[in-house]
Amino acid sequence: MSRAYLDHNATTPLRLEAREAMLAAMDILGNPSSVHAEGRKARALVERSRETILEALGAAQSDLIFTSGATEAAALALAGRDLHSAPVEHDAVLAWTDASLPVDADGRVMVSDPTTSTLQLANSETGILQDLPEGLAVSDITQGVGRVPYAHDWTGVKMAVLSAHKFGGPKGIGALIVPRGHHLDSRAKGGGQEMGRRAGTENVAAIAGMAAAAQAALRDLANGLWDQVAQLRNILESALEADDPDTISVGRQIRRLPNTSLILTPGWKGETQVMAMDLAGFALSSGSACSSGKVRASRTLRAMGHDEGTAACALRVSLGLQTTEDEVLRFADAFIAARRKQRSRAA
Amino acid sequence: MSRAYLDHNATTPLRLEAREAMLAAMDILGNPSSVHAEGRKARALVERSRETILEALGAAQSDLIFTSGATEAAALALAGRDLHSAPVEHDAVLAWTDASLPVDADGRVMVSDPTTSTLQLANSETGILQDLPEGLAVSDITQGVGRVPYAHDWTGVKMAVLSAHKFGGPKGIGALIVPRGHHLDSRAKGGGQEMGRRAGTENVAAIAGMAAAAQAALRDLANGLWDQVAQLRNILESALEADDPDTISVGRQIRRLPNTSLILTPGWKGETQVMAMDLAGFALSSGSACSSGKVRASRTLRAMGHDEGTAACALRVSLGLQTTEDEVLRFADAFIAARRKQRSRAA
Repeated sequence: MSRAYLDHNATTPLRLEAREAMLAAMDILGNPSSVHAEGRKARALVERSRETILEALGAAQSDLIFTSGATEAAALALAGRDLHSAPVEHDAVLAWTDASLPVDADGRVMVSDPTTSTLQLANSETGILQDLPEGLAVSDITQGVGRVPYAHDWTGVKMAVLSAHKFGGPKGIGALIVPRGHHLDSRAKGGGQEMGRRAGTENVAAIAGMAAAAQAALRDLANGLWDQVAQLRNILESALEADDPDTISVGRQIRRLPNTSLILTPGWKGETQVMAMDLAGFALSSGSACSSGKVRASRTLRAMGHDEGTAACALRVSLGLQTTEDEVLRFADAFIAARRKQRSRAA
Repeated sequence: MSRAYLDHNATTPLRLEAREAMLAAMDILGNPSSVHAEGRKARALVERSRETILEALGAAQSDLIFTSGATEAAALALAGRDLHSAPVEHDAVLAWTDASLPVDADGRVMVSDPTTSTLQLANSETGILQDLPEGLAVSDITQGVGRVPYAHDWTGVKMAVLSAHKFGGPKGIGALIVPRGHHLDSRAKGGGQEMGRRAGTENVAAIAGMAAAAQAALRDLANGLWDQVAQLRNILESALEADDPDTISVGRQIRRLPNTSLILTPGWKGETQVMAMDLAGFALSSGSACSSGKVRASRTLRAMGHDEGTAACALRVSLGLQTTEDEVLRFADAFIAARRKQRSRAA
């Protein structure tokens, strides 16, 4: 039996469109900073890609700075600014901000002053969506892009951080959306690229892949493909609850991403669940990928008021556009069997 | 007639081996930080690639931190350290250092205290090679990798900065070589990747491409392919000098890269030369790619004692492994014809 990949919030497969765009870009020889025809061809591809991505994100009135991913984009947007954040944010945001904003039991963050705050669009662990207040300084939209509608120019958000590999683009490329003409102190110095805001030769192939993925993601979203994913997610949660009414599907009643389910099983460490399910043929995570190596309680769950013991017992199931009903049902069966076994051992 | 690309110091074509490695890596689904089988497979590819690159660079006793390119690697190595450099360094190095080291007429840099200095292995404009002193704090080896022998662990250099796309790897990936176990303050924060020294999901496909390119570059170097390139370069310089004995091939008598020729034609602006040659079907540069958009005199030539007028009249020809004798002879003819025309106009 083939394995089922249910960890799409960690990374999602490269879309065929992105792969093809990257292959075509690999044949473009020039350095975008070179003035000759070969350089201009590479430059044109970068600028076309920039426009495509801005359009897909409803940000045609804004500007976009390419970075090596959301982590670098977050640093570019946040370093040295001492913005306020909530503890539900990704580590790449928390590294530069003070996690002082309150979070309620439903995972909603209360922002008092948007102009000095950063707030994520969607949480990577629970999928819970936030209402972004007008005038917000920075939003990490990484987990939301392509999964929920987002029109940057309508949000009133000043800057937005994103990563391509969460919506079917390649790893190693991301971007920061900024107001048109907005100056930023470059952290990577030594070249005039990205209007002096991010030095270094552009990752041309990845940029082309990101643009193709953004376009395809927008199309799939418009075609309602994520509604089908949400149905699979609901089938999964219903199956787990039918077996045990004490199952906690975090945020089930709250507006969240269509693909994410965070299941709490008090008394069964999330790390152990991940390993048991991995052996059974299912790829899942107990939290966000960059911290999943460490055994620790979810900061997001702690902020929502769960005690440390419970917060360490989470399993995140994140579905993708290729996930099938068969995979979901097989996972539900395997998880229920493992849970029963664990409980009989613990009893 | 097809165009001839003679700007390999700006960027060089993606090697077939790199392309194939990237395609294979695109099928690896996991995030290297994920603990499940898919994640471990991606992690294994990243670590195998790291070892391959270290071996190809004679750095098996050292450690390597992947970055988005040489610019980021330079920032990681240099920011906040106030090291000494010479004005012949790349902008990405000069951005973080004081260009106080003296340069002689042959382009050689005099380093007084290696432990507080940074020195390039090869100059991007002239190709002139430096002797790296034992104990040197940082070297930018970007233009030398794969073109001249380099065994990091034998040099006594502490850290080395490099970029993949100069030796046939993809754009958007580079690395910093550091002593094994050496700690560095991460500039990209928010994840434990690269042993806490560079956060952000790894650019898995580009990393695989970089490793394949490094291996292929080492093989080609060992097989003497660059000696053939040096012969073509010498044919070119001899042809230009035969037409006009006043032709200045900068550094002709000095140890330099096998592929680089910097031709001075006083009275004919480098930018104009680049445009004239571009129209004639040849891609060249008047300096390093990231500054080639700006019309300005070469800092390297100024440091070597050339006056500002002469330093603005340089054309850089940088050959690659695919460059043919026919391309070089065609270029020599076209350049000589354009130079005669320019001189008759100026007279």
